[in-house]
Parts: sequence; structure tokens; C-alpha cells
Amino acid sequence: MTAIRIVEVGPRDGLQNESARLPLADKVRFIDALSKTGLREIEAGAFVRPDRVPQMADSESVLRRIRRARGVVYSALVPNEQGFERAVDAGADKAAVFTAASETFNRRNINASIRESIDRFRPVVARARRMRLPLRAYVSTAFWCPYEGKVSPAAVARVARTLLELGVQELSIGDTIGKASPSDVRRLLDALLKTTPAKTIFLHFHDTYGMAVANALCAWSEYRITGFDASAGGLGGCPYAPGASGNVATEDLLYALKASGADVPAEPKAVAAAAALILARLGREPSSRLGRLARGAAGR
Amino acid sequence: MTAIRIVEVGPRDGLQNESARLPLADKVRFIDALSKTGLREIEAGAFVRPDRVPQMADSESVLRRIRRARGVVYSALVPNEQGFERAVDAGADKAAVFTAASETFNRRNINASIRESIDRFRPVVARARRMRLPLRAYVSTAFWCPYEGKVSPAAVARVARTLLELGVQELSIGDTIGKASPSDVRRLLDALLKTTPAKTIFLHFHDTYGMAVANALCAWSEYRITGFDASAGGLGGCPYAPGASGNVATEDLLYALKASGADVPAEPKAVAAAAALILARLGREPSSRLGRLARGAAGR
Repeated sequence: MTAIRIVEVGPRDGLQNESARLPLADKVRFIDALSKTGLREIEAGAFVRPDRVPQMADSESVLRRIRRARGVVYSALVPNEQGFERAVDAGADKAAVFTAASETFNRRNINASIRESIDRFRPVVARARRMRLPLRAYVSTAFWCPYEGKVSPAAVARVARTLLELGVQELSIGDTIGKASPSDVRRLLDALLKTTPAKTIFLHFHDTYGMAVANALCAWSEYRITGFDASAGGLGGCPYAPGASGNVATEDLLYALKASGADVPAEPKAVAAAAALILARLGREPSSRLGRLARGAAGR
Repeated sequence: MTAIRIVEVGPRDGLQNESARLPLADKVRFIDALSKTGLREIEAGAFVRPDRVPQMADSESVLRRIRRARGVVYSALVPNEQGFERAVDAGADKAAVFTAASETFNRRNINASIRESIDRFRPVVARARRMRLPLRAYVSTAFWCPYEGKVSPAAVARVARTLLELGVQELSIGDTIGKASPSDVRRLLDALLKTTPAKTIFLHFHDTYGMAVANALCAWSEYRITGFDASAGGLGGCPYAPGASGNVATEDLLYALKASGADVPAEPKAVAAAAALILARLGREPSSRLGRLARGAAGR
């Protein structure tokens, strides 16, 4: 039995897509609570333009103020070399760059072709390698693109190979708009695993249409994928679909994997509890099933 | 490609587990809206003791007042012969009796052993056969029991065989507390399909822990099960778990099956729209992913 690896993206991908802005102390408390659950990696912030992503404007302070738990990796999203420097200065253990598998999405999202976006973070890869800092790359719209529709598995495999050859160690293969079904997961993994080692792959599902848990279980039970991104409390949303649920909820994903016999790093209930405070601060109900149960048990 | 068969249980299993009581007109409007979606069977009410299940006290009036759509079957839950008579008088096209696969659950739920409960509805089966009225039987706690824990697939297969031999045509195999994972589904179907024809089986999943869609996709893609119970809007809950989500949401289930290539009877969006009004009346947000999207698109 191979251990499940979770990258907790609630404090970054989750909060970044919540409309409410939270005070620094709440973010720090959220990450500190997550640190005690057993989760081994937490994406704690992003060093991007504060005018574009105001929710992440205080990521430097967040990284400086959290109580680091032994054995937990605290990572940060960086768009370029300056962002990388700031992340490292603030104490990030790992950095993450980003591109997409759909040209139209990449152009509209960051005004660059896929090749240009990879060229932009090439210096980041070089610096991370010299520093021996682990580096992941997000590949957005790996299943469906809001502009182009279905994305071809061959396009994803091409981007993945380029990134690995460049020196990125880990790929987060994202279903940005949450439209992938298990059939799409199978089609992509059939192609991707021909050139990309399974251990470098993290699947990043959004639960927009309610298929995220099914997708993860399919990838784990049929393809032995063990890496998944998830967001405590199901925090987040989708800029392309108002009202959308966010990333698959960490607690629901852990519960389903554990129920299926997988070796999971944290207790689902502990993660739901860690999310409860931040959800209360955001003034919203948990979108996770376990979060709803926790509220019900507390009589709220 | 075999067509998916959905029994829409929102107006019965869903509303029965909502704490709020609704006026008759709202229930009728809900069923009438569902009738226009393409769904072919709607469980419209229950002829049970009104002191035990007050939400279903007006089922007779509901059945009399709905606008029947051509080709749609309107069914009702009945505990015994008197309930059956009342359901038929009110115009039910089909009746449903109920038992469980766990002795402890059955005793606590209806104060009878499984055998006694089957004996009680034996006259209903006989009358339904004489009238050529279709009859389904609910088998609760077919995966997990809140008192006994894991339920053995052999116990479920035994109850299923008894019911089919008695003359019941259709079985609703229920994950009453929503704790089943796809592994549990595989274990049960491996045993059950040895003695029970796939076409007599409807799987009845609750989404308490967020695995309902994964379970249904597993049963459909690996075992070619085509019958599923579901509840528009994800109405309902679970009396054994405060705060629990209800039955799997019809719209999310339809979306996932359709995305997987199945032939589904109704458009997911149409079902979500039919549920929107009743959710507003109940004063609660949809628990379905598609319901949340519909609210978001409407700017609420």
C-alpha cells in the first residue's frame, strides 16, 4: 500500500478564489491548525501582483508568522524570479510555477503562449535547482478549457514532458473548471503515463460538477496515482463559474480514499475541524460533506 | 448503450427528512416541475403514520392534485395493506414496501425482525400482483448499519432473493447512512449479482460522506447497473447523522452519468431548476453542485 500524498491548497488556491478578504491572523491560524492534522504539505501563499490577487497580498507575512511544524513543507506560488526571491526570503520550502495545457486559456489568463510562460519561469527553475529547492508546476486546463472545450491528452503530455525536462520535479495536473469525469481521467492518464512517471503527478480536481471524488478514486484505484491537491473545507471557487464549489475538499477526499483502503496522512475529521474556523470567518457554510456533518454534530 | 433509470425520491425520501414542513401546494408544484424534466418515475409520497412522519401526512392530497405527465410513474411508499389501499385509491401507479438488511436496524426502525417485516407486507405483494400494480421494495442498511457496522453482502443477497421470490419486481438497495465506498459497492454487487438480475436492482445512495456519485459511477461503469434513486436538489438528510447531506442529488448524478457517456432521461439543469423553488421554500441552499452553480448564475 503506497501512501497518499496531499498538497493542501486551501490557504492559497482556496482563499484566492473566495471573494472575502481575511485578516493576516486568520490565515496564520488556519495554516497552524492544518499543520497539526498530519498533512505534509501546505501551499501557504502566492507572490503574485497584489493588484491582481489582493487575497494573497500578505503572503510574505503569512509565511513569516506561521508556526512551522516539523516535517511539514510550506510552499508558495511564484510567477517569476522576483516572486521566487520573495518567497524564498519569506521562508518558503518549495515553490510552484504555473502554465496551462490550453493556449487560449494561457493567453487570456497570463497573456502569454504556453511556450512564453515556460520561458518566463525558466530562470526560476534554474535558481531552484541551484538552491536544491523543490519545484512544482501547475498545468491548468488539463482536461477542459473554458474557451477551447476538451483539451487533448497529447497536449498535456507535451507540456508535462517539457516541464520535467526543464527540471521541475512535480506536476499538478489541473481540472481548472471541474468538468472532468472519470472517463476523461482515464483518457488523460492513458496518454500521460506513457511519458510521465506516476510519482511526479498530482491531480488537482475542482468539484464544480460534483465529480472530483469519483475522479480521484478512479485515478488511485485504476492508475495508482497517489498525489492529489485538495482544499480544506472545500474552500475556493472558480472564476469561470459563479457559485461553483472550489477544490475538492481535503476531508472528503481523505475520507473516500481511506474508506477505499488507502493509507492517508491525516484524519478527515481533523481537517474538517481545521477548516471550520476559517469558514466561520468567511461567513459561509462548508461545501464539504464532512464539514456539514461537523456543523450538524455541533448543533449549528 | 442502456438507458439510465432514475427513481426521483425527492418528494418522499427527501422531504421526509427535511425538518421544515411544507404546504401542500409547494409539494404539488415541486412534483409538477419534476414531471416536465424527462424523469420517468417520481415517488410522490408515503402512506405511513402521520404522527411518525408528519411531513408525509398529506400524501393523499398530493397524489390527487398533481398534474400527471404522460409516461411518468407516480409511486408511493406503503408500510402495510391499509397504506397500500390508500395509495391506490389516491392514484399511485406503483407501491413500495420496505425492510432492511440489518436485523438491529429493522428492529429499531420498525420494531420487527426482517422476517416479520416481510411477513407484514406479504398481503401487499399479493394484492399488488392481483392488481398488476408494480411493486418495489426498499432494502435499507445494505452496506452499513448505524448499530451493527458493516453489513454482509450475503445478508443483502438473502433478503433480495426472498423479496424477488415473493413477487416484488424491483429492489432499492440502500446505503442508508451514506458510508459506502466504491469498494463496498463492488463487494456487494459481486455477491448480489450472483442471484439477483441487474435489471431488478436500483442503488439508493446517500451523500453523507461525499461518495455517492463515485459509487454510482462505479456500479454503472463496472457492473452495468442502470437503476438509481436520487433526490432533486440533494433534498433530505439522515436521521442518524445531524447535518448530513441527503440522497445523492439527481442533477449531479445525471451530470456525472452523462459526462461518462450514459444515456440519461433528463437534463441535469432542468432538474436543478425544478429543485430551486422547493429549496427556496425550505429556506436552504442546494447541497448539489449544479444547484450551487444555478444560484451563482442567477447572482444569488
